[in-house]
Amino acid sequence: MKYVYSFSEGNKDMKNILGGKGANIAEMISLGLPVPRGFTVTTDACIKYYEDNENLNEEITKQVYAKLAELEKVTGKILGDINNPLLVSVRSGARVSMPGMMDTILNLGMNDEVCLTIAKMTNNERFAYDSYRRFIQMFADVVMNFPKEDFEGLFDKIKEEKQITNDTELTALDLKEVIDKYKQQYKKHANTDFPQDPKVQLIEAIKAVFRSWNNDRAITYRKLNNIPSDWGTAVNVQEMVYGNKGETSGTGVAFTRNPATGEKKLFGEYLINAQGEDVVAGIRTPQSIETLKDIMPKCYEEFQKICTILENHYKDMQDMEFTIEEGKLFMLQTRNGKRTAEAAIKIAVDLVTEKMISKEEALLRVDATSLDQLLHPTFKKEALAKAKLITTGLAASPGAATGRIYFSASDAIDAYKNKHEKVLLVRKETSPEDIDGMNIAEGILTIHGGMTSHAAVVARGMGKCCVSGCNELTIDEINKTIAIKEDILFHEGDFISIDGNTGNVYGEQIETEERKISGAFETFMNWADEKRTLGVRVNADTPKDALTAKNFGAEGIGLCRTEHMFFEPTRIFHFRKMIIAETKEEREKALNEILEYQKDDFYKLLKTMAGYEVTIRFLDPPLHEFLPKTNKEINELAHKLKISFDSLSKRIDSLKEFNPMMGHRGCRLAITYPEIAIMQTKAVIEAAIKLEEEKITVEPEIMIPLVGDINELKYIKNIIKTTADTLILNKNSQVKYKIGTMIEIPRACIIADKLAEEAEFFSFGTNDLTQLTYGFSRDDSPKFLKDYYEKNIFKEDVFSSIDEDGVGTLVKMAASLGKKTRPNISLGICGEHGGDPKSIEFCHKNNLTYVSCSTYRIPIARLAAAQAAIKSGCKSKE
Amino acid sequence: MKYVYSFSEGNKDMKNILGGKGANIAEMISLGLPVPRGFTVTTDACIKYYEDNENLNEEITKQVYAKLAELEKVTGKILGDINNPLLVSVRSGARVSMPGMMDTILNLGMNDEVCLTIAKMTNNERFAYDSYRRFIQMFADVVMNFPKEDFEGLFDKIKEEKQITNDTELTALDLKEVIDKYKQQYKKHANTDFPQDPKVQLIEAIKAVFRSWNNDRAITYRKLNNIPSDWGTAVNVQEMVYGNKGETSGTGVAFTRNPATGEKKLFGEYLINAQGEDVVAGIRTPQSIETLKDIMPKCYEEFQKICTILENHYKDMQDMEFTIEEGKLFMLQTRNGKRTAEAAIKIAVDLVTEKMISKEEALLRVDATSLDQLLHPTFKKEALAKAKLITTGLAASPGAATGRIYFSASDAIDAYKNKHEKVLLVRKETSPEDIDGMNIAEGILTIHGGMTSHAAVVARGMGKCCVSGCNELTIDEINKTIAIKEDILFHEGDFISIDGNTGNVYGEQIETEERKISGAFETFMNWADEKRTLGVRVNADTPKDALTAKNFGAEGIGLCRTEHMFFEPTRIFHFRKMIIAETKEEREKALNEILEYQKDDFYKLLKTMAGYEVTIRFLDPPLHEFLPKTNKEINELAHKLKISFDSLSKRIDSLKEFNPMMGHRGCRLAITYPEIAIMQTKAVIEAAIKLEEEKITVEPEIMIPLVGDINELKYIKNIIKTTADTLILNKNSQVKYKIGTMIEIPRACIIADKLAEEAEFFSFGTNDLTQLTYGFSRDDSPKFLKDYYEKNIFKEDVFSSIDEDGVGTLVKMAASLGKKTRPNISLGICGEHGGDPKSIEFCHKNNLTYVSCSTYRIPIARLAAAQAAIKSGCKSKE
Repeated sequence: MKYVYSFSEGNKDMKNILGGKGANIAEMISLGLPVPRGFTVTTDACIKYYEDNENLNEEITKQVYAKLAELEKVTGKILGDINNPLLVSVRSGARVSMPGMMDTILNLGMNDEVCLTIAKMTNNERFAYDSYRRFIQMFADVVMNFPKEDFEGLFDKIKEEKQITNDTELTALDLKEVIDKYKQQYKKHANTDFPQDPKVQLIEAIKAVFRSWNNDRAITYRKLNNIPSDWGTAVNVQEMVYGNKGETSGTGVAFTRNPATGEKKLFGEYLINAQGEDVVAGIRTPQSIETLKDIMPKCYEEFQKICTILENHYKDMQDMEFTIEEGKLFMLQTRNGKRTAEAAIKIAVDLVTEKMISKEEALLRVDATSLDQLLHPTFKKEALAKAKLITTGLAASPGAATGRIYFSASDAIDAYKNKHEKVLLVRKETSPEDIDGMNIAEGILTIHGGMTSHAAVVARGMGKCCVSGCNELTIDEINKTIAIKEDILFHEGDFISIDGNTGNVYGEQIETEERKISGAFETFMNWADEKRTLGVRVNADTPKDALTAKNFGAEGIGLCRTEHMFFEPTRIFHFRKMIIAETKEEREKALNEILEYQKDDFYKLLKTMAGYEVTIRFLDPPLHEFLPKTNKEINELAHKLKISFDSLSKRIDSLKEFNPMMGHRGCRLAITYPEIAIMQTKAVIEAAIKLEEEKITVEPEIMIPLVGDINELKYIKNIIKTTADTLILNKNSQVKYKIGTMIEIPRACIIADKLAEEAEFFSFGTNDLTQLTYGFSRDDSPKFLKDYYEKNIFKEDVFSSIDEDGVGTLVKMAASLGKKTRPNISLGICGEHGGDPKSIEFCHKNNLTYVSCSTYRIPIARLAAAQAAIKSGCKSKE
Repeated sequence: MKYVYSFSEGNKDMKNILGGKGANIAEMISLGLPVPRGFTVTTDACIKYYEDNENLNEEITKQVYAKLAELEKVTGKILGDINNPLLVSVRSGARVSMPGMMDTILNLGMNDEVCLTIAKMTNNERFAYDSYRRFIQMFADVVMNFPKEDFEGLFDKIKEEKQITNDTELTALDLKEVIDKYKQQYKKHANTDFPQDPKVQLIEAIKAVFRSWNNDRAITYRKLNNIPSDWGTAVNVQEMVYGNKGETSGTGVAFTRNPATGEKKLFGEYLINAQGEDVVAGIRTPQSIETLKDIMPKCYEEFQKICTILENHYKDMQDMEFTIEEGKLFMLQTRNGKRTAEAAIKIAVDLVTEKMISKEEALLRVDATSLDQLLHPTFKKEALAKAKLITTGLAASPGAATGRIYFSASDAIDAYKNKHEKVLLVRKETSPEDIDGMNIAEGILTIHGGMTSHAAVVARGMGKCCVSGCNELTIDEINKTIAIKEDILFHEGDFISIDGNTGNVYGEQIETEERKISGAFETFMNWADEKRTLGVRVNADTPKDALTAKNFGAEGIGLCRTEHMFFEPTRIFHFRKMIIAETKEEREKALNEILEYQKDDFYKLLKTMAGYEVTIRFLDPPLHEFLPKTNKEINELAHKLKISFDSLSKRIDSLKEFNPMMGHRGCRLAITYPEIAIMQTKAVIEAAIKLEEEKITVEPEIMIPLVGDINELKYIKNIIKTTADTLILNKNSQVKYKIGTMIEIPRACIIADKLAEEAEFFSFGTNDLTQLTYGFSRDDSPKFLKDYYEKNIFKEDVFSSIDEDGVGTLVKMAASLGKKTRPNISLGICGEHGGDPKSIEFCHKNNLTYVSCSTYRIPIARLAAAQAAIKSGCKSKE
């Protein structure tokens, strides 16, 4: 096994074993660019290191020394040599960039003797001592894991003694003193002297970088970014070049285009007389890259040339690090630059215009999920201008939200369901129990927690606006208030607005507005539509959502959840009356009160989506979800219903279930109470007939949920057909409608051939299907699945993408059985996976007809569908 | 479509269209036996009748009249004729016998004129009028559905007026008066005269019998016996013969062998001068069939000959009805006689000895499920002799049970779990909410409800002793007492004993004893073992159950549920401490307290089953099941644990789940708390090592429940293997053990090929698999599934037998994928289906290795496995 590669042996396609940094350095060398020489210890070596219980075996060590010898030959310098010593940097570099998460050691090779030689050779004592003290400090921290402050404290103390504020003011002598103190401190911690043998230093440094793959920061970062923990990191050992050798030296970073806007213009910054870490530390303010033109015109010209070479070679915007050592430019790193979604689209479209890449390549360049950032509502500019900023937290999840504040998930849900308010959930910090409250809130505001807190992570997953870590706020959960510095006080129910893009919090209601798809974004989405074969529909229950979705490119509604309509205050009473009713007649009477409302719902929805198919799912949730929970509410309802508190409580109790997810819901409700299905059918068909009279053609699709047996479907279909056909016949109407079923029960997948005899379409409800296939209750599993993620039993959230091995096999089975019976059957997916790129690719591969997702995920779905089509080499639509 | 068959056109194999009775009458005619002639209206006609909304169409009516004409030709009599009138009976007859559930009409053809003719022809006015009045009464009841009491009342009034107690004392004149009154009463109800046209009578009677297929009695009977409601009934129209024509006439029923014991001896009874209904009515006591020998020796001799002919022909014990009309014997019906399980076995074994049938046929003759009756415990004879009978109810479910009485399911569960008592559940009547209480009770006693009450049906399903409808008892649920006639009082916690075979209730504890397999039963079971290829294991958690099961023929344990062991009072505290513990160390300490107990459990269990495989399932239920529920109990535990009530309550609350069935249970517990799996592994392996030291070879199999992903299995297997192998190595032991998994999650079936890489065996947990495949919570679904059964969406209990289309497909998939990876993988089933004959046949067909079932179902499983092997033409073991 080859564990170590010289830079000259690699290329950009070897990222898996050399890491991104190593592979790109190798590529730059093959392009003839000025890059300091070195070698890469592979990710395989890292994996082996962990397999061997954090030991670097002899074979790897041998190979490292062999490549070191080659490096010494190429550079003419020797590690630890008193005459011409080699100094190297030791840097991490994983397959994908994990900026700042792992460790780096610079100036390795320094020891007491080498330091003197360097001082002599460079004729710069201060430089030599400064390099040595930096090395000891890094080594103590990264390799030995000694407390940072013990070394920093010593440094600060000497600065204090010398009455100095800037590091640069320290003299060589001062630094020598620092070194002595550092070595004493080192010995105190280690019980041995600081290692003078550079070969020992090297091996220890390589091991330390391997270890840093599993530091807390790195683990969290991987989890957030779904990076497998078994990849490991490579280590790059590279000859040091110095940007801190005086006024003709410097170091910087630059992008070939603007990573925020995508503008085609060199973008970056640098520091004169500095090392890389100084740029990161932020003590000195770097200068814009453009100023380099005047200061070092030759270097700038060369750098510009290199930028063009790299962009033409990589055919993408590059993010580069460089160092200028005494007037000579060295490239330390290049990679495809990270960019905002906006920039990604602009660059992709520009690169097509510049004939650098094809439309297909452009479409593949943009991470579909990132489009989410571009479409969330913003505050109206004029409204925002007048708004009063009260405090600022972390911009944890994009968007703008305004709503009445509530301090617990249950209060928020109550206000949402019963008072029909727009709510903002305010919590010290959120926990998995808050999920339902987060789900119905416009936005989430937390006092504690950073960018990776529960609130932040979950809100981003939900595409919901969140400001976290708003430390200035104090919360009083008993009196239900929040305060800022004791003089600004807000009560439960007051309006607050939050901006998830800036972290700003405003003490009032601010009008928001939807965003549009235009410019390069529009061009780009049109290309996506040319390439994709999958249809994209929206999950929407209201005309407002439907309209927004249509503007975002939705081609119909894949899931209209009718139950949301029953929560409106005007209807919920009648619906509760229906639930409480003891006879069919009472039930029918109560339902009749809702019929006109429901008809109006469908009328508006169908009208908004005229010309497109609209899939209406019949009542799905268990009835107890519609009933009041607290004694106070029960009392009120009992009073209104003119029945006793006891008998109402008893009825509510009788509806309680041990496992409601597998209880009396979905089509099972329509079997017990066919009158509900009859009312809903009337509402759909009467709405369609009314639109027909207005010469508007609509295509309602009635969807029966939670079917597991053919006889369930037959029974309910018969009820729907009888009701619908009678209405159509009586009105002499030509209205067409379809009846289909959701496939969300494992058994439905297995008997899909039989279901297709009755169902004109299938829509996969992969949320419930995933729950049942795994036997994981979505409400309960987060608690124990965290152990799964921690113990690496599951690599990523089991609900985030379709589980191809399990759920996917069932979906494939159902699709193929369904088509066997009814070759032209329409196959959709309407669970949350309908907006997940990985799942969309699965749907494309398995020839589904369409995906349906939430409003803000429509562009994601369009792009992901196009990417799937391109990847599978599928022909475009036109 | 042929809707009507003459008796001479049918044979015994046409039961599906002619019904059992019609087919057997036809067969007897083809055997040349004396049978009154007639015809059968088919079950197809019945189905058509219902399809046409309870109308008899012209075609059927036409065919009835055509066959009537044929009958008139054969008999030389004509329906309604004044000179030689034909009288017929109209009887139901379904595919399978539903005794007494549907309706019959006799003497049809009678009217005012015919009655006079009959009187003249028979020279027996009294007979003629009696027949007529019986006919009117039956017609009014069965066809017209008029209140029975309105006619019976009139009859009783006349008897009263005449000061007569016996019907036979009524004179012809009296009966004429009855007829007049009946006709008036009829007119009062119907607003028309009693129909004089016999053809109208006939068609109305046929329709009435069809209708009786759907009367309440019949529907309940079908449900109880899993008879599909779409089969319909046939109707037999047969020339009347009369057993009530004087002292040379009579009627009776007889069996060719004793249906209670199986003894080979004619068994039956008859009445002289009577019609069939008189035997049923029970007003006169019938005589034993043997006495007929002296009274009518010629008839008796002929009857005996016919018995032999029928047994030889049907090769089975026959149940026959006969009538003697003025010295002439007529056979009215024959069928394979119903018998007790004991008789069934005796007869089957005897028939083999008599060379009438083969062993295979004998094995197929006995309903496997019926063996359940033979093995339930009985009271010890000496103990029973001394016991005091306090009252008697209905013998609702066989067995004998003794225990402390509790009046609610929760109190019973509490006493069982926390006081480790044997409990008897006493309820006014049970409801689905009582299921858990019924399940842990020794037996169930109810005040209300008959043989088909909830308690009776569920108890029979559970194989649990039940006495229902014990009306003499009064229950005081507040003071928790039961009383009999105010002078006998029992309090909660007192001992009572019930006998489910007799309905007797005793006011004390009575020792019970297990029953054995011996005699003909033993012979029979040995034949079953010769034929079957499926292994049969038991689901048992205690050495006692294991021993009983071994005596019943169990070949190992297929499921030992370890959680039951934790409920013992000595252990539950430590287990609760483990649950409450906040650190791994505390948990390990608490578990350590349980280790020795658990080791002892396994030691005894393994020892009992030495030489056989014993599958031990690791902890499965959610932890909250082990924690106290009431405030009082929580307080007690908090005190013992030295923590506050609040913090304990909080911990208990934190374990509550929305859908516990899909929550933190099964292998998910071992992932969060590996220390539980480690403790259980130690217990198993240390027990095995101890037995090894005693030179007893045991074969423990460790089963990991609720696995859905390969990584779950890998993680836990690794923990178990490390723990076990260390113990074995340290003790220098040769103990062998296996690690396998339950397949009870749909996803496990789909990825079974992967699971088989790690699992040495699969055991299908079809209970949970059925719940998840259908998405039916077993706790909640009974409430709404009743609508499914009523609406004929499901034909039978969805949990009673394996659902071959859905769950079965998953099982087949898992079996075949598992074998692909590991050809010799052991495949068992350990859900309740392991004791269900239909499911056992499925397991045989799909080449499973064994079934595992509850103790009392072992013989059922052995027989069902043999039957499955015979049916599939499989070679026998030897």
